[in-house]
Amino acid sequence: MSDITLSSFPALSSMNALWQARYGTPPAIPALPESPVARSLMAHRSVRAFSSAPLPDGVLEAAVAAAQSASTSSNMQAWSVVAVQDGPRRARIAELAGAQDFIAQAPLFLAWVVDLARLAAVGHAHDRVLPGLDCLDTFLAGVMDTALAAQNAAASLESYGLGIVYVGGVRNNPEAIAAELGLPPRTMAVFGMSVGYPDRRHPTTIKPRLPQQSVLHRERYDAAATTGAEIAAYDERLRAVRASAGQPARSWSEAMLARLGDVSALHGRERLPQALRAMGFRLDQA
Amino acid sequence: MSDITLSSFPALSSMNALWQARYGTPPAIPALPESPVARSLMAHRSVRAFSSAPLPDGVLEAAVAAAQSASTSSNMQAWSVVAVQDGPRRARIAELAGAQDFIAQAPLFLAWVVDLARLAAVGHAHDRVLPGLDCLDTFLAGVMDTALAAQNAAASLESYGLGIVYVGGVRNNPEAIAAELGLPPRTMAVFGMSVGYPDRRHPTTIKPRLPQQSVLHRERYDAAATTGAEIAAYDERLRAVRASAGQPARSWSEAMLARLGDVSALHGRERLPQALRAMGFRLDQA
Repeated sequence: MSDITLSSFPALSSMNALWQARYGTPPAIPALPESPVARSLMAHRSVRAFSSAPLPDGVLEAAVAAAQSASTSSNMQAWSVVAVQDGPRRARIAELAGAQDFIAQAPLFLAWVVDLARLAAVGHAHDRVLPGLDCLDTFLAGVMDTALAAQNAAASLESYGLGIVYVGGVRNNPEAIAAELGLPPRTMAVFGMSVGYPDRRHPTTIKPRLPQQSVLHRERYDAAATTGAEIAAYDERLRAVRASAGQPARSWSEAMLARLGDVSALHGRERLPQALRAMGFRLDQA
Repeated sequence: MSDITLSSFPALSSMNALWQARYGTPPAIPALPESPVARSLMAHRSVRAFSSAPLPDGVLEAAVAAAQSASTSSNMQAWSVVAVQDGPRRARIAELAGAQDFIAQAPLFLAWVVDLARLAAVGHAHDRVLPGLDCLDTFLAGVMDTALAAQNAAASLESYGLGIVYVGGVRNNPEAIAAELGLPPRTMAVFGMSVGYPDRRHPTTIKPRLPQQSVLHRERYDAAATTGAEIAAYDERLRAVRASAGQPARSWSEAMLARLGDVSALHGRERLPQALRAMGFRLDQA
């Protein structure tokens, strides 16, 4: 295991260098306080090309232990994860999630599941109706529990030198995914995650983000923090990074207009409310 | 800054010891692969008593850089964070979020905001209607973006020796929180986070969680993975840890029945669908 350490992350090893890569500018603070954890998180890049090398023993269990160590709303722990290694099952999931080949390629697929079924079982065992389970807020708390857990798992897996990518495509057809994974009523895979060693023939890059002042507000929300000039500069920076990675030139604004300008870009996710009802979520008052 | 490192976390320094504290059993794997990142995540405990010491320069900016480095659905970056340091404002938020004194005590409060307003502005700038903004799936993607970002920030802040606690109480009365923070339409604070140095006079403990096999399923979901005996054992373990920390004895099952058995336990969150509409989210098809 000696080669599976943080040092297997590529060159960008200082917080300042990572900031520069993420924002395209030097840090607002002259010297960012160093932290191996923050540095590892800042080095994230999504991986979509994987080697076939298997995962070392114990990294999945360690990642799930980190996931369970995340905060959870009222200790409800309203999530589960289904670890899929079987090749044919991964291939079927790849198809259902929008023909994303890397799901079949990576040795591990994690389906992250909002799980109110386990809580419903607690009520059942005590012969109690639990109306709170039917509130939108409880579903939302489950979604947040799931996301906090998954992000801890992602950070852990990356710290072992593995690559990951989140897969929102499992929401294109959630009922078919549920059937494939044997999910009971009141559960739903809200996103997936492919995991494996990055294929070094397909290097990944740090994805530029909006300037920090666009998302970090002081005391009160400042809608003027994101000016048209800043968006234009970000559009240009993203276009340049895409071009240098051999991807089709497209600005952020263009991507957002395409993603949100027509519900057909949601590939079925526009029917999420109906799908949730079909999967046993009531979301009363919704 | 030399004392603000991972070593400022209390004694539990090995992955195996952290596993034992979290699950009450030795690891399923004889030797978990060591990782400073996974270890730091596994050491999480929520802090609800803070010293008045201010935060060092740069930790907030580093934490938000880590947050922006997290994955985001289709690069929508559909979140913002409002950093509140002003004492009277924190006191008002503490009151709105269920009289949680630690919000007034901790030097920093972060309001984590689902933000579709910035994307709406992109549409406006290009004179385009964006129907995707009104789909439940897009709101949900924003919630997940926000949670992934917040968890990266939490992990970073903890790595500097700071303590954090998530605050779901901002959803008790989201319109009043929005007014306090000046949030525009199509934004909502979905949770908060108090941040500061832990008050060492109030030590925190690792919170026990359900056994790993309850949440980690292999190939397909296994509803039989969580037996009544396992729940009973977890109930007892949680009760014992609470008792040793001087908290009222209460099992997990009792806590869950109380949390979900009556919507009044949601303290206003049961009206989330109406609140969302009032705050400019349409969630069509819902």
